[in-house]
Amino acid sequence: MAGGYQVAPLARLVEQFERLPGIGHKSAQRLAYHVLGMTKEQAQAFADAVLEAHDKIHYCKVCCNLTDQPLCPICRDERRDTSVICVVEDPRDVIAMERTNEYKGSYHVLHGAISPLSDVGPEQLCIKELLARVQGGKVKEVIMATNPTVEGEATAMYISRLLKPLGVKVTRLAYGIPVGGDLEYADEVTLLRALEGRSEL
Amino acid sequence: MAGGYQVAPLARLVEQFERLPGIGHKSAQRLAYHVLGMTKEQAQAFADAVLEAHDKIHYCKVCCNLTDQPLCPICRDERRDTSVICVVEDPRDVIAMERTNEYKGSYHVLHGAISPLSDVGPEQLCIKELLARVQGGKVKEVIMATNPTVEGEATAMYISRLLKPLGVKVTRLAYGIPVGGDLEYADEVTLLRALEGRSEL
Repeated sequence: MAGGYQVAPLARLVEQFERLPGIGHKSAQRLAYHVLGMTKEQAQAFADAVLEAHDKIHYCKVCCNLTDQPLCPICRDERRDTSVICVVEDPRDVIAMERTNEYKGSYHVLHGAISPLSDVGPEQLCIKELLARVQGGKVKEVIMATNPTVEGEATAMYISRLLKPLGVKVTRLAYGIPVGGDLEYADEVTLLRALEGRSEL
Repeated sequence: MAGGYQVAPLARLVEQFERLPGIGHKSAQRLAYHVLGMTKEQAQAFADAVLEAHDKIHYCKVCCNLTDQPLCPICRDERRDTSVICVVEDPRDVIAMERTNEYKGSYHVLHGAISPLSDVGPEQLCIKELLARVQGGKVKEVIMATNPTVEGEATAMYISRLLKPLGVKVTRLAYGIPVGGDLEYADEVTLLRALEGRSEL
């Protein structure tokens, strides 16, 4: 507030909201005022959810996805095919893949991509856990589903070079024009990849 | 998550974020994952800020602005002119007025505007507290600074009718074209008000 008229607990709450990604000062203020309008129970439930999620959620021992159990729900599910591993950068990518309702294999979450500019090297990612799974010998195929960005590509290349000597098949998601998209607005690199990957009708 | 692969504490946190105004499911997910990436101390500070703000902040005994003390910082400030009261709908409007660095009077926060459609009547607003202040006899002018909306107008009219018999001067913020605005894009009602309120150069 201008002129030094601060209300400390409110300023602290606004500051906390401002630290969240994509929340500017105006939004933080709006959220803070919303919290003030909550009932005591609602505010308590909100604070509890923050602490509980933070306390109980950790990496799955097998696939490094987030879970509150030793194994994540997908690794616990005996119907899933553990001979296929889909490697993604982020837990949210698992949710996106699951929405296809088609993929029945398992996952491996790297928690990032190799990015020298952001000081993220292979050792910061869950790559050794992936190697351990493949070295176990029961994996037939690893599908690299990292993002189609420079970092995602580099990570896919790096991991595939580590995996190939282990005798496992390494594949990459197809590139092409997005379904429902418009050729006119597709960038030339995407179009080139779509052309290269064309299939017979 | 599709297919019933829910991680309960994470789902609860996402749900809590989704309840905040202007936060959709995607944003809630992003915020929840951000919380998971915090250190334990950061998560604790966030949860504490929510509870502390909610516990300690209440209405100022004089002007109904939000504060953690009996009186808000502006009402505690002896340099402010208490013979002038600027009536606003929301605590955020006080912050906006303070940014002008010109107004040195006091405020009164109504916490809303009369809106029959949203079931908000005069008795839900802090109007009787304002009347009590004016009845105290030391107030010379009340500036109605409610929003230039139908509800804000109606509220200003309603309150001015209650105040006039008390012998106090009641004024309204000027209407006109916003500074830095473009005549071409000003709506006709604003232009009309700007014309009516024209002053000699």
